[in-house]
This record gives sequence, structure tokens and C-alpha cells, in this order.
Amino acid sequence: MDGVDYLADERSKAQFDVDELKIVWAGSPHAFEVSDRISRLVASDPAFRKDNRPMLGRKELFKNTLRKATYAWKRIIELRLNEEEASKLRFYVDEPAFTDLHWGMFVPAIKGQGTDEQQQKWLPLAYKMQIIGCYAQTELGHGSNVQGLETTATFDPQTDEFIIHSPTLTSSKWWPGGLGKISTHGVVYARLITDGQDHGVHGFIVQLRSLDDHSPLPGITVGDIGMKFGNGAYNTMDNGVLRFDHVRIPRDQMLMRFVGKELVFQVTRDGKVKQSNVPRQLVYGTMVFVRQTIVADASCAISRAVCIATRYSAVRRQFGSQNGGAETQVIDYKTQQNRLFPLLASAYAFRFVGEWLKWLYTDVTQRLQANDFSTLPEAHACTAGLKSLTTSATAAALSSAATFSFGIFSYTCLHHILKDAIEECRKLCGGHGYLCTSGLPELFAVYVPACTYEGDNIVLLLQVARFLMKTVSQLGSGKKPVGTTAYMGRAEHLLQCQCDVQRAEDWLKPSAILEAFEARATRMSVACARNLSKFKNQEEGFLELQADLVEAAVAHCQLIVVSKFIEKLQQDIPGNGVKQVLGVLCNVYALNILHKHLGDFLSTGCITPKQGSLASEQLRSLYSQVRPNAIALVDAFNYTDHYLGSVLGRYDGNVYPKLYEEAWKDPLNDTVVPDGYHEYIRPLLKQQLRTARL
Amino acid sequence: MDGVDYLADERSKAQFDVDELKIVWAGSPHAFEVSDRISRLVASDPAFRKDNRPMLGRKELFKNTLRKATYAWKRIIELRLNEEEASKLRFYVDEPAFTDLHWGMFVPAIKGQGTDEQQQKWLPLAYKMQIIGCYAQTELGHGSNVQGLETTATFDPQTDEFIIHSPTLTSSKWWPGGLGKISTHGVVYARLITDGQDHGVHGFIVQLRSLDDHSPLPGITVGDIGMKFGNGAYNTMDNGVLRFDHVRIPRDQMLMRFVGKELVFQVTRDGKVKQSNVPRQLVYGTMVFVRQTIVADASCAISRAVCIATRYSAVRRQFGSQNGGAETQVIDYKTQQNRLFPLLASAYAFRFVGEWLKWLYTDVTQRLQANDFSTLPEAHACTAGLKSLTTSATAAALSSAATFSFGIFSYTCLHHILKDAIEECRKLCGGHGYLCTSGLPELFAVYVPACTYEGDNIVLLLQVARFLMKTVSQLGSGKKPVGTTAYMGRAEHLLQCQCDVQRAEDWLKPSAILEAFEARATRMSVACARNLSKFKNQEEGFLELQADLVEAAVAHCQLIVVSKFIEKLQQDIPGNGVKQVLGVLCNVYALNILHKHLGDFLSTGCITPKQGSLASEQLRSLYSQVRPNAIALVDAFNYTDHYLGSVLGRYDGNVYPKLYEEAWKDPLNDTVVPDGYHEYIRPLLKQQLRTARL
Repeated sequence: MDGVDYLADERSKAQFDVDELKIVWAGSPHAFEVSDRISRLVASDPAFRKDNRPMLGRKELFKNTLRKATYAWKRIIELRLNEEEASKLRFYVDEPAFTDLHWGMFVPAIKGQGTDEQQQKWLPLAYKMQIIGCYAQTELGHGSNVQGLETTATFDPQTDEFIIHSPTLTSSKWWPGGLGKISTHGVVYARLITDGQDHGVHGFIVQLRSLDDHSPLPGITVGDIGMKFGNGAYNTMDNGVLRFDHVRIPRDQMLMRFVGKELVFQVTRDGKVKQSNVPRQLVYGTMVFVRQTIVADASCAISRAVCIATRYSAVRRQFGSQNGGAETQVIDYKTQQNRLFPLLASAYAFRFVGEWLKWLYTDVTQRLQANDFSTLPEAHACTAGLKSLTTSATAAALSSAATFSFGIFSYTCLHHILKDAIEECRKLCGGHGYLCTSGLPELFAVYVPACTYEGDNIVLLLQVARFLMKTVSQLGSGKKPVGTTAYMGRAEHLLQCQCDVQRAEDWLKPSAILEAFEARATRMSVACARNLSKFKNQEEGFLELQADLVEAAVAHCQLIVVSKFIEKLQQDIPGNGVKQVLGVLCNVYALNILHKHLGDFLSTGCITPKQGSLASEQLRSLYSQVRPNAIALVDAFNYTDHYLGSVLGRYDGNVYPKLYEEAWKDPLNDTVVPDGYHEYIRPLLKQQLRTARL
Repeated sequence: MDGVDYLADERSKAQFDVDELKIVWAGSPHAFEVSDRISRLVASDPAFRKDNRPMLGRKELFKNTLRKATYAWKRIIELRLNEEEASKLRFYVDEPAFTDLHWGMFVPAIKGQGTDEQQQKWLPLAYKMQIIGCYAQTELGHGSNVQGLETTATFDPQTDEFIIHSPTLTSSKWWPGGLGKISTHGVVYARLITDGQDHGVHGFIVQLRSLDDHSPLPGITVGDIGMKFGNGAYNTMDNGVLRFDHVRIPRDQMLMRFVGKELVFQVTRDGKVKQSNVPRQLVYGTMVFVRQTIVADASCAISRAVCIATRYSAVRRQFGSQNGGAETQVIDYKTQQNRLFPLLASAYAFRFVGEWLKWLYTDVTQRLQANDFSTLPEAHACTAGLKSLTTSATAAALSSAATFSFGIFSYTCLHHILKDAIEECRKLCGGHGYLCTSGLPELFAVYVPACTYEGDNIVLLLQVARFLMKTVSQLGSGKKPVGTTAYMGRAEHLLQCQCDVQRAEDWLKPSAILEAFEARATRMSVACARNLSKFKNQEEGFLELQADLVEAAVAHCQLIVVSKFIEKLQQDIPGNGVKQVLGVLCNVYALNILHKHLGDFLSTGCITPKQGSLASEQLRSLYSQVRPNAIALVDAFNYTDHYLGSVLGRYDGNVYPKLYEEAWKDPLNDTVVPDGYHEYIRPLLKQQLRTARL
């Protein structure tokens, strides 16, 4: 029954203007227009079909990705798309490919760390895709600990070259996307050695393959690292392994890392290392762009999963039939709402945090490029606490993490929650969520690596914790905490305040929520600091108390997300009922965290058991307010069925006939009697195993 | 460096007798001997190789599974293996296949529900695999709600036949394993209609395919439902779709469901339905066997994941290098221990619960077969509370769930925790856990469906909650709660007792732990009951308070697992240090739950915030006691490298060289220049897109 909207009833229940919320979600009318136009363009082009991915073998799958990536580039040129449109197009093609790394890491690395000459030489080639680049950092033996990388770049003053070499098996580059079969060049991270001295890890532009016939250059061993989790998922990507056997590159292929107009680090013709005194922690690198992208991807991933689970929960009926009538829609069960609606709220919460991060990065970037270091006291304050990170010359990667430590906080927090959210959505779809046609396995498998590929979350959370401890230790010094830790300036109050919630409705006040979250975060940090002070050796204390420190960091991150959601609601938001429904989601988001982490709030005395149960009561009544708006709230993401890639999440709700139809496309159904019957099954049934060839 | 044990150092640290613990894990010296022998047999036979699965396309993968299943059967015959050995062999082959359903559901269904005549007719054929059967219950539109199944079996008195029919699209059978391409027969669940009257859901033996040429019989449409989550995983299984168009079967192919010697339900020649007055809830069916298997599988799955993560955590080093020495083993970080060791403890906890369940099922089965209903007051008590389940004639499946409600409790609880455990182990392996060669994606994808394929966990937890509410409501009546709810008999005490823990060590006393868990479970149940009583309409209350009810049920289930672990430790356990190390794990298991659910314990006033923080302190010191024993504790599972299927979890710890070696086996590495280069990449690099065929 194509053309019928089986969810029309649900849509008519919405109490707000969906079109206005679409614009809020997109960020602006312009952003909405571009997204809407490009997503339809992709969805309507059969060359971008993606539903057959799970059925393809690795080689076919990969070849198909190459075709799509090249075709996408062709369309970008033909349609003269600008950078924003081109990047949206790649986004909606929705297939991990070498181009992600080329545009997302290789180009930004050169832009962020290259000298003017390097940029003039390499960027035009990269922009036209006359070379294809990757970002070769992670090694078999070292991921999170970038300082521990083993690849060496030894300067040879005789020839004015660096010799790139893989001295051990564990120094093999391992994981970089696009490296395995496609990239012609890479930004390779290696330890700089001059005159026998180790100067830490730096980036180098290295050609990997011949531009004539694509064969690896002499001294280079390169390949794919093999299959990864999931059916299609990241198996469309050639994550690579790479070994160097004394590969020589000219000196000017070391990325010299400019900040503003200042050269931060260079190796001179005679092998001397020169460093400027621009604060190391302000180096602006590739990872900043990357983080920004990852956060955006994260809010997309969760919203896709939530969209699928919400629509299907409205379609699926189970139990509760009375007098032979229809059964109850699964979305009407409180247990379903209790799991689903907080995730729906999270999708919006993360979107708004992402928006704020984007603004933050843009702002900081602009200041940096204007050589305006002095106006960044907040950045200084934060980076100071992350000194351990910046004591080595670990390339822009981690330094930038330090610079944007307020960014990292939320970023880390997101990942902490997100993957579980996708998996929870899959569970909310019951058994059918396990089918590839549901789209959820793919979403899960694609999203999973985000949690590790840019630094393990626990490692990042410990960095956050370290900064919090520093902040606490300076509280008495008159130095005011700023930015996202500003609330700690009121520590004295927060350490002894009493929550004044008396009725369930009191929990709707943003001030009540904020204070409870701030008190909890402060008290957990202060408790950690107190326990730390009992150790003679601070570092020993850090190791021993890691688990508590991580919990304190999580509390801080959750506070940030909640407070950014509340801030968003203080802005002007047009559209009938839009602000109201977002307000409901904000409360759902916060009170659900409060319920999940009740132990924190109670053990620190921030709230009483009675107040905790009032919060749960309020939460239940908020769910009833979300319910009629649920479908419209996910419609506001404005995802095409192509992008969503899920039979369960179809816009029209026509789930069962399409599931049935899709089943018959499996290769196993090519024949009624399966391949293997005559060799294996018939001899079994006919008791003729002795002569069977097995 | 084959032959070197890189974990020898770790093994020498163990403070207990590993060989003795192996026997405890296996259950008995005999069970250990059989497992050990058969697992080695499978591991040493190249025909059972499984490392290539992720690289195979669906058809190849499936065909390969057929080969293995038939070969396994051939070996079983050649080696004259007994039933126990044969089942172990299938277990260690470790590949989901049609045989799982044939032996695990089809045969037990006939054994459990067939009349003597039916058993005599069908079982010999099934035992010899002259027919292959599946269990066709779930439909496109109905999973958890078995009562809602739509397939009909209408009795035709004219011909003495049933007419099996699929009246709607959603009535299509959907999911049954082995159904898609292989099964020749199925136990099909359908609504029995006689004389226009609906008698609820019953099981029927239906032939699906010709035994001559394997083509589907007239009126039958059957096929595979398509790809599922994961690379190899369950894609080796032909989960099927099946539609009936008025298919006729003789009356004697309805399973008549005997209990003991009594006929429970039958349709006579003239279409009359006869029911005996044997209590419906005591019907003993297929699901009992199945549940038992699933619980066993669950403890295997988690122990495999934990084994991989533990060994790799000892191999992997990251950060913490001092003076150029080796970096710190990841397993030495408190954050890693905090996540890993509770999972290790869970593996043992679930094993012991599984053991208890197995005993329980055996015991109850024997009593039932001896027509000994009267000696089952506990079963009666439990089943009474699950009346809603048994009010329809929903076949043995759910009735058996009711009978063994004490079983279902733990069973449900297991699943609630398990899948997250596997995923957590994957995260604990960092980025490399995302590679198929780590074995963890496969383990995850294979295990995931266990959480839904036998009834959604939330649905089961709500059944548990319903029973708890019933128990609470009868507390005043003088009726003593028994079995796993016996503790509620002391409700008066548990509702007002105060935990007397004053020092961290006090948390080592089993009595302190048990009382805290019992008090928490009781208070949560009683609070739910109190809130329920505020509703005029009980059922409305149930719907509104679902989320709280589920939490109360979880608290009850966790108590059961903890108490069974404690009971195990009260038995005689031989072997140097074995009992001690298990005692440490038991405390880790309990105190970790206490920490994770601190909100429950605090808000119900079972413990004070101070006592909560003493528990965390004690937990940290327990981790130090687990640490030296960690590798030996996973060695005790006695898994071969073949069964484990993980490069990261290799017994010898030789991880990196093997990861590197495995990478080159990916099909993408067959050629240096990838397929697709000439068509897609070269035109891109050479700016010749206009003429490219894309």
C-alpha cells in the first residue's frame, strides 16, 4: 500500500509546529534548506543505493564504495556544489570511505600544521584529489598513548632528508582509514630524531604509492587490516597497516606547525631543532576539526536510532487486546517510554551541546588566527590543568585536546552515553531490530569505533578529572574558575546547600535541577580531592582512585550537557509549541540522569530519598507529555528513508509488508533448494554419509 | 615465536590450584574430562576451522555450515559418541546451525508434548536425522505475546484433518532457525479452531518439504528472512519465513501434550475438545529444555568474553613508562579492574546459578514424570502468582515458564546483564576489539538475540514483578513465601533492620551482604505494592508503575544470584586456595552491584552513605586480591584457542605478531592494487571523470 501514511494519526496528535522544529534541529533556515535539498538529491539517485551492503562480500563491498565515492565527486563537480553542499552530500551518501579521511583529516592536518609553502604545494593537489591522503597516527602497539608511538623519522644532514622507519612490529601503523588500499599520501606521525636525540612525535607528509600505477613505493609495505564488526559498516573502509623500511623524504615534508603567523617548531638545514615560545598548549591542530565532526556525527547517530525505535514503537502492537480489538501500541507501555523517551531527549541534548561546541571552536579558531592569545584566559586556565598532556611534543593532536578542554568535556561525555543509546534502541525494537534491514546493526557497528578511535573515553575522562582536581585545589587561592567550571566558584554554597524541592512539580524549575547537578558535581570532585590528599604520592593516589575520579568527571560532563540544554531554552525559539516541547525534553533528560545516578545525589546529600522519588514521579508525568509528540519529534530530524536505511523506521510506517518483501532479496533465496543440499543435506537425510565428501 | 608462553609470568602468580578450579567450573571430574577431550578433538580437526567465517559471503557461509553440521554428525557416528559427547561436540563446533533447533527444540517438543504413539512414530526418524525439524512459533506480528499468534489450524471433521493456514501477512512465521532452507518438518504453533470456536494456541507436526527433492510441499511458501547482525554470527543460520495456504495434516499430528501419564488436551474424531483437569500450569514442555540450554550458553558467552579481555589486558601495555622501561599493563589500572573484575566475577556467579537451575529442572522433571504433583508446593506457590500467563492455552511454552518461575527469575536476570557484559569486554580491549579477529564482534552478535528470542526480558521481568506483588499481598495471610521468595517471610524484620557495617571489612561477611540485598528487594517490592494499592484499577496501576516494578524485579533477581553464589561457597570445595579465590569473587560480584545500584540501597534506607563508601573502599581492596589470580581464573574455563576464536585472547599471549599475520588473509590483500582502482580511482586521480563509467 505505497502512498498511505500509516502514522498519520500519530502525526496529527503533535502539539507543536514540526516545520519550525526542523529548523531548530538543523541550526538555521539556511542549514535546513541545504540539508533538505542535498538529502533528497542523494535519496533519489539510484547510484547511491545502500540497502544491498550487508549481502556483499568484502571485495564487492569495497569496490562498490570506490564507485560511489568517485561518483559522488563527479556529481559535486557537475553540480558545482560549494564546500558546504559537497560535505553534506558525502554525509548523506552515508558510507564510510577513504574520502572521509582525505577531507576530514589529511586536508585539515596540512591546513592546520603546514607552513605557507607546504600549504601552497600540497593543498591544490588535495583539493582536486590528484593525490589522496590519510592520517597515519595509531600503531599496532599504541593508540591512546600518542607519546608512545615508535615509528622514527631520523634526520640525515648529509642528504637533507628524514628517514622514516618502523623499528619494531608494534610500530606498524594500524587502523588509519583509507590507508590500506587507496591513499597515495599520508600525514605520518613519527618520533623526530636528530643527532641521536629524540624530539618527540611530529607529523610528516609521506608519499605511499606511485601516482602512475598505484603500487607501493620502495620500502613501503601496506595493506588492509581485515574485517571489522558489522555487515557493511566500516568494512567499506580500507583501514590499513603500514610499515616503513628506511623510506627517505625531503626535510620540507615535516609539518612545521604554524600558529597564527608564528613558526612553532622547525628542523633547520643542519639538523638543529628550533622552537618558538608560543605556548605549546595553544597549538591548533587537526584534531579540533575532527572532534567537531565526531560530535556532529554522534548526534546524528543517536537521532537516527531514536527515529527508528520511536516510529517502530508506534507501529508495533503487542498484548493488551481487549474484546478482540487491536493490541496496545508498544510506545504506550511505560517501560518502553522509560527507555525510549530519555534517548529521544538525549538526541536533542547532544544536538545542542554540539551546536555550542561548534560555536566554541569557531570562536577560538578565529582568535588564534588573529594571534589573539591574550583574550583566551579560559583556554589558559583549562590547559594549565592538563600540563601532563603537553609536556611532550605530541603533535597537535593532543595539544588541541588540551586547548579545548572545555570542549573535550562534553565530547567525552557524549561518547560515554551514545553507543549504549544505539544498542538500547535496537533492543527497543525487539527481535526485528536484529535484522540488517532494521538498519540498527549497521548504525551500531558504524558508530562503535567512535568511542575508541579518537582516544579511549576513560583516558579522556581521567584528563577531565585531573583538571577538576586542579580546579578544586585552587579554590582557596582567589583564582576564579571560569567557563564550564565556573560553578565551582560557588563551592562554599554548593557544598552545604539543601535542595528545596517539596512537590513533584518543583523539579520542573531549571534552577532546582541546575543546583542539584552542580552540588553533586562539586561534592564528588571535592570528595575525590580530599581522598587524594591522603596519599603521600599524588600520582599513586590518582591511580588508586581512578574509578572515583571517572565518576566525578562523568558528573561534571552531565552537568554541562544539562546546562547547555537549559541555556538553549533561554534563547528565543520561534514556532507554535516548540519551546514548550523542548522544555519537556530538557526535564526528561535531566531527571532521568538524576534517577539513573540516584546513588550519587543521595550519598552526597544533595537531595533526600523523598526528593528522589518526587523526581521519578515527575518523570512519569513528563512521559505522558512526550507521548503525543513523539512521532513529530523524530520527524523533525527530517531524515529521508534512504538516509535512515531502516524498514522499521520508514516514514510511512508500512513496516510488515516491506520486511516481508526485503526478505526475498537475500541471496539464499535465489533458489528454493539451497546450494549444499545435494552434497551435504541429502546424504544426511538418506543415511548415505559414509560415501559423502565432506 | 610459537611455543613461547608470554603469559607464563602471570600464571606463576596464581594463588590457587587451577586444575581444581577447572573441575569446579566444569561441574564434576567427569564433565571436565568429556569437555576437555571433545574440545580438543574439535580444535585439532581442520574441518572445523572457523576463522574464515567473517570473510565469506552469505551463500558460501551457509554452505560451509551445512558441510560442518553434516561432518559433525558423521564423526559422531564414526566415533560412536554418546548423547552427552555428541552434544558437547556440537557445542564446541561453535557455529549456529539447523541442528541446534532440531536437537534443541524439535526433538524436545515431541518428547515433551507428544503422545506415546507420536513419539514412537516421529522420534526414531528425528534421532537418525531422516527428518530435520524446526520450531515454528514466532510470527512477523507476534513474538513475546504467544497468545496473539494468528496462524490457524481448523479441524475438518469430514476428512479428519487440520487445515493449517496463514490468514494475514503478519501471521507469517518469521525467525524460526533452520526453517528457511533446511527443515523438512516443523512443530508449528497455531490457533486451534473446531466448529468455529477458538481453543487457543497449540503445536502441530507439519511436513514442510519433500523428502525426495527438498522442494516445499504444495501450499507452503518458505524462505530465509535475510541477513542479521554480525559478520559470520547467526548468518550461518537459515532463520525462516513460512506461509501456509490451506495445508492439510492428519488429526494425529496435533501434539496432545501428555503430562506424566495423563492426556491434557485432545481433539476427538468428531471435533470435540477434551481437557483433563491436570493443573494447566504444570504442563511440562519444550521451553524448559531450551531455557536450561540458554542459561548454560549465557555463562559460556560471558566467560569467553571475559577470558579474551582479561588475557589481552595483561598483554596490552599503555602509558606509565618510567625511565624508558616497559609501559604499564592495562590490567593494572584501577579503571580497567573496576570494569573487568566484576565481569569476571559475574562469569562465575552465572555459572553457579546455571548449575542450580539445572539441578532444579532435573528435580522437577523427575517429580512430574512420576506423576508426583503433590510434592511440588513451591511450584504451585510460584505458578499461582503467574495466573495471567496460564489463563490461555498458550501451549507448553509459557506454561512451563510459569511452572519454573523460580527458574525464570534468575534466567531473566542473567540476560539483563549479559549482553552488556560482552560489549563491555569489547570496549576493554580498546580499538583492536573492533576487529573480527578479536572474536568479540562475533560473540556479541551471536549472543545478542538470546535477549529477545525467548521472550523479551522486560516482559519476563514484569512477570517476575507480578509474582512479587502477589507474594507481598499474601504476607499478612499466614501463607509462607517459599523458595526464592522465602526471605520475604521475614519482611517485618527486613523492613526496619539497620545494616551494622562499621568498617570496610565488615562487608566481607556474607550475612551483611545477604541482609542488605534482602532488605533492598523487600523494601522495593513493598513500596511498589503500596503505590499499586493507590490505584482503583490494579491493571492500570501495573501499567503506570511498570518501570518501578521492573526495578523491583531486578533487585529480586540480583539477590538470587548473590545468594546462590554464597550457597555454593558453603559447600565443600577442594583444591588449594580455590574456595578463597571464589570467595573474593563472590564479594566483588555483590559489592559491585551494591555500588552500581547505590540509589536503591540508599533511598530505601538499607544502608547509609557512609556504609556505601565503605563498600567501595572494600571493593578496591578486593580488586588487588583478584589481580594476581586473574589469568589463572580465566584459564580455569579451559577453553581451547579454537573455541575462543580470538587473537587477542590467545592462551600464549602472542597477540601482535598473530594480529599482523591475520591481517594479510583478508581478500582485499589478494592484490596490491585493489579491484576497482582502474575503473574508479585512476580516473579520479588523473582528472578523467567525465569519461568514466560510474
